Amino acid sequence: MEVQTAYRYEQLADLVAEMVANGALAPGAQAPSVRAVSEQHGVSVSTVLQAYRTLEDRGILVARPQSGFYVALAPRGALALPSASRPRAKASTVSIGGAVAALLEHASNSSLVPLGCAVPEAALLQSRRLDLALARAARQHGTEYNIYGAARGDAGLRREIARRAMRLGHALSPDDVVITNGCSEAIMLALTSVAERGDTIAVESPTYFGLLHTLEMLGMKALEVPTHPTLGVDVAALARLLDTEAVAACVLSSCFSNPLGSTMSEADKRALLALLARRRVPLIEDDVYGEIHFGRERPRPFIALEGGVDTIYCSSFSKSLAPGYRVGWIATRTHAQKVVERKMAFSLCGPTLPQVAFADFLASGSYDAHLRRMRRTFDDNLARMMRAVEASFPAGTKVSRPAGGFVLWLELPKPFDSRALFDEALEHGICFAPGDVFSASRRYRHCLRLSAGYAWSDQMEEGVRRLGRLAREQSDR
Amino acid sequence: MEVQTAYRYEQLADLVAEMVANGALAPGAQAPSVRAVSEQHGVSVSTVLQAYRTLEDRGILVARPQSGFYVALAPRGALALPSASRPRAKASTVSIGGAVAALLEHASNSSLVPLGCAVPEAALLQSRRLDLALARAARQHGTEYNIYGAARGDAGLRREIARRAMRLGHALSPDDVVITNGCSEAIMLALTSVAERGDTIAVESPTYFGLLHTLEMLGMKALEVPTHPTLGVDVAALARLLDTEAVAACVLSSCFSNPLGSTMSEADKRALLALLARRRVPLIEDDVYGEIHFGRERPRPFIALEGGVDTIYCSSFSKSLAPGYRVGWIATRTHAQKVVERKMAFSLCGPTLPQVAFADFLASGSYDAHLRRMRRTFDDNLARMMRAVEASFPAGTKVSRPAGGFVLWLELPKPFDSRALFDEALEHGICFAPGDVFSASRRYRHCLRLSAGYAWSDQMEEGVRRLGRLAREQSDR
Repeated sequence: MEVQTAYRYEQLADLVAEMVANGALAPGAQAPSVRAVSEQHGVSVSTVLQAYRTLEDRGILVARPQSGFYVALAPRGALALPSASRPRAKASTVSIGGAVAALLEHASNSSLVPLGCAVPEAALLQSRRLDLALARAARQHGTEYNIYGAARGDAGLRREIARRAMRLGHALSPDDVVITNGCSEAIMLALTSVAERGDTIAVESPTYFGLLHTLEMLGMKALEVPTHPTLGVDVAALARLLDTEAVAACVLSSCFSNPLGSTMSEADKRALLALLARRRVPLIEDDVYGEIHFGRERPRPFIALEGGVDTIYCSSFSKSLAPGYRVGWIATRTHAQKVVERKMAFSLCGPTLPQVAFADFLASGSYDAHLRRMRRTFDDNLARMMRAVEASFPAGTKVSRPAGGFVLWLELPKPFDSRALFDEALEHGICFAPGDVFSASRRYRHCLRLSAGYAWSDQMEEGVRRLGRLAREQSDR
Repeated sequence: MEVQTAYRYEQLADLVAEMVANGALAPGAQAPSVRAVSEQHGVSVSTVLQAYRTLEDRGILVARPQSGFYVALAPRGALALPSASRPRAKASTVSIGGAVAALLEHASNSSLVPLGCAVPEAALLQSRRLDLALARAARQHGTEYNIYGAARGDAGLRREIARRAMRLGHALSPDDVVITNGCSEAIMLALTSVAERGDTIAVESPTYFGLLHTLEMLGMKALEVPTHPTLGVDVAALARLLDTEAVAACVLSSCFSNPLGSTMSEADKRALLALLARRRVPLIEDDVYGEIHFGRERPRPFIALEGGVDTIYCSSFSKSLAPGYRVGWIATRTHAQKVVERKMAFSLCGPTLPQVAFADFLASGSYDAHLRRMRRTFDDNLARMMRAVEASFPAGTKVSRPAGGFVLWLELPKPFDSRALFDEALEHGICFAPGDVFSASRRYRHCLRLSAGYAWSDQMEEGVRRLGRLAREQSDR
C-alpha cells in the first residue's frame, strides 16, 4: 500500500471499513456523524462525506435520507461470496477459440433464454436518439464524410470523449484518444503495441473469455492472477508472480470485472500502479462496464489515478448504449503513436458516419439521463436474478455481489460440472456461460456466469429457476 | 504455362498477341475476320469474339463499329513504359511506418492539389443512394440491429456479395464471405491466418505502401518479386525466388495493381496458381480496383480461376463507392474458419447498420450504373493526366498504362530524387506519392505515383504541369 499517495478521504474510508470488518461497527448500527468525524480527525466535512460515499459505493454503508449513514445489513438469506481465486502461478498458452465460438453461437440464438451473452437487450437500450443522429448525419453529411477518416478517428467524437473523462478527474486530451471498433479492437491494438507473440500477459482469474481468445490469436500466454470476488486483483500475489515470471503487460478491469463484478479499491489501484511502475510493466485497463455503477460515484479508472504515463485505457459504448455501432476507444499518452500506427496498418480507419452520430449524440447531453436509467434497470435486474438464484440453486452455491455491470458469477459446491449443465440447459432452451471459458487453464468448471442484460420477465425468472433446478438435480445425483 | 488448363479463347488470344508482338500484324492493320479465324481454327464464332474482346481489354486490338477489329496504334507521342522491376532477390524487414504516416497526413490536407492519396473524390462518388439507405436503416431498424452482429458479418450483405461474384464465373457461397473493415483489415486477417511473425511474404515490386506497413506491424518480411508494368508479376522469376527463399504467402493484386496498374493475363494467373499449388504457398489477392476496368470485361480474379482452394480473396467498396463506410470482405473456403476466428478475436464484429445499408443498396441494382459512370470518369481522368504528364515532365520520363484504377506510375530518368521533389511540391501546394514508399528495400526513389481520383479540373491540370516543371528543373540542375 502506498499510503503516502492515498487521499485523506480514502484513509478515512479504510479506517471505517476496518471498524466494520472487525465488528466495532455492527451491521445496522449508525455510523459516527459526519460532523463528529470531521472534528475528531481535523478534516473538512466534505472529506468525511466523500469517505462515506465511497463506503456507500462499496456497499459497506447505507445512506438514509434525513438520518445519516448506517452500516449495511447483510441481505437476509444471502448466499456466500465465491472464494478468492488461487490459479496456478505459471503462464499458460491459451486454446479456447473453439469453446468461445460455440458459446457465442448459442448466445446469439434468440430462441434461448438469454443468460449467456454479456450484452444488453436492444429494446432496453433505447438507442433511438443515436439512430436518428446517424440518419441525420447520413442524409445531411454523407458526401462530406465519404472519405478515409483520420486513423485516430473523428475529431468531434474524440473531443466529446475527452470532455467526459474530466468527470473522472482525468485531464484527457483529444489527441490521446484513438477511436476503435469496439473495446475488442482497443484491447488488440493495446496488446500488440506493448507485447509480442510468445509474451506473457497477466490477467484476472477468472477473466473475460474474449480477452483469452485475443491472447490465443496473438500467440500470447496468460498468467492468471489471484482475484477476490469483490476486491479484485490481489496486489501482493501479483507482486510475487512478477518475481518469478516475465510479464510483458497486465490487462485488468477498471471496475465491475467480467465475470466477477469485482472492483479494486483506490488504495489497491494505487498500490498496483506503483508496483507496475517499479517493474516497468505497462497496464492495459478495460473500463467497458464503468458507466454502469450502482453506487453514487463512478469508480475512477487506473488512468485517472496514474495520469496515463504507462496505462492504456480501453472502453466502448457497447455495454451502455450501442453494441451494434462498434464504437470504442483507447486513451493513452505514451503509447498513442504505437496504437495509431497499428490502427492504420490493421484497418486504416473506422467508418466515419457512426462516429459523427456518436459525437452529435454525446454533445446533446442525453447520454447521462440514459445512463441513469440503465443503471437502475441493471441494478434491479441483478437483484431479481440474485433472488431467483437463492431460491433455486443448490445449497452451498456462492454468488458474486457486483456493484455495477450486469453479470453474476456463481460457484457451485464441488463436484459440479457446468459443461454438463450447459448441454442440458440448451435442451431446456436456456443459454448461460460455463465457467471454464473464463480461464486459460480451464479452471472454474464448477462455476458459471449469468447475464442480466435483458429486460426482466417471467421468461428470465423461469429460466434462472429452471437452471437452478437442473443444477440441483446434478448435485443430487 | 499450363496450356492444358487454359481456355481455347485464351490460346487464340495469345496467338494473336504474339503475331502483333512479332510484327506479323502491324499497328493499325485489320485483324483477321472473326468468321475466318473461326473456320481456320475450327472454333465457334463466340470463342473468337471472346479472344478478340480479351485482346481489346488488353489494349492490343481496337473494335470499330461495323468494321471489325484492328491492331491498336501506339498513342502519338506516347511516353515509354517503365522498366520491368528487378528488386533484390532477398526478403527485407520493413521499416516504412513513419514515411507512410507522413504521406497520409499530407495526402489528407485539402489545401494541396490531391495527387497523393489513391482515393476517389467524395463528390465524384455520389454516394447519396447509399447514404439514404443508411438513414433508412437507422430510422427503421436501429433497435433491431443494436446487437453484436455475427463475426462474419450481415447475412444479407454476404449474399449480395456472393451473387455479384457469379459474374466472374465464381460460384461463391455466402458462407465463405467474411465482412471486414475495408480491404486493409481483410489483408491483415488473411495474413495472420496463414503466416506468423518473422515469416516472408512475396509481394509485387513496386507494391502498395499500406501492405508494406501492415507487414511491418505484423513483423513479417517482404520479398519483392520482379513485376512488369503491364503484365504484372514475372511467374518464372517468382519460381526461382521460391527455390531460394521460404515464403509463407503471396499477396498480389487481382488486376490494376497499385501503383503500376498492371494486370496478369489469365494464362499467367493459371501458371502462378499452379506454381503456388506445387509449392503449397497460399495466395492472398487484393481486388480492390477490380470493378474499375476500362475494357469491356472485368479481369477475372485468381479465386475465380482456382476455385478458392488456397486463395484468400480480399476486396472492398472503398475505391468504387464508399471509402467512408469501411466495408470490405474476404472470400475464402479453406481458410474461412481461421479468418472468422481472428475477426472475432481482433474486433468481435463490424458495425451492423452500414452493412445493412450496403446490402439494401446492392439489392437495388443501382451499383452497376454507378460503376459504369466511375469507369468512364477515371478512364478520362487518366487520359488527361497522361497528356499533362507528356507535356510537362522531363524528356525520357516513362509512364504506366493502366487499363483500370486511377493511378499513374512515373519513372524519371536517373539520377532523380522524388523525395526532394516531394518536399518542393508541398511548398507549391501539391501532394503526390514519392516512389520509395512502394518498396520494402526503398527502391524507386526516381519514381512517383500520381492519383487521378479527383474530378479533373484546371487545378488538377495545372498541378500536374507544375509538378512536371519542378521535375524538369531538378533534372536540368
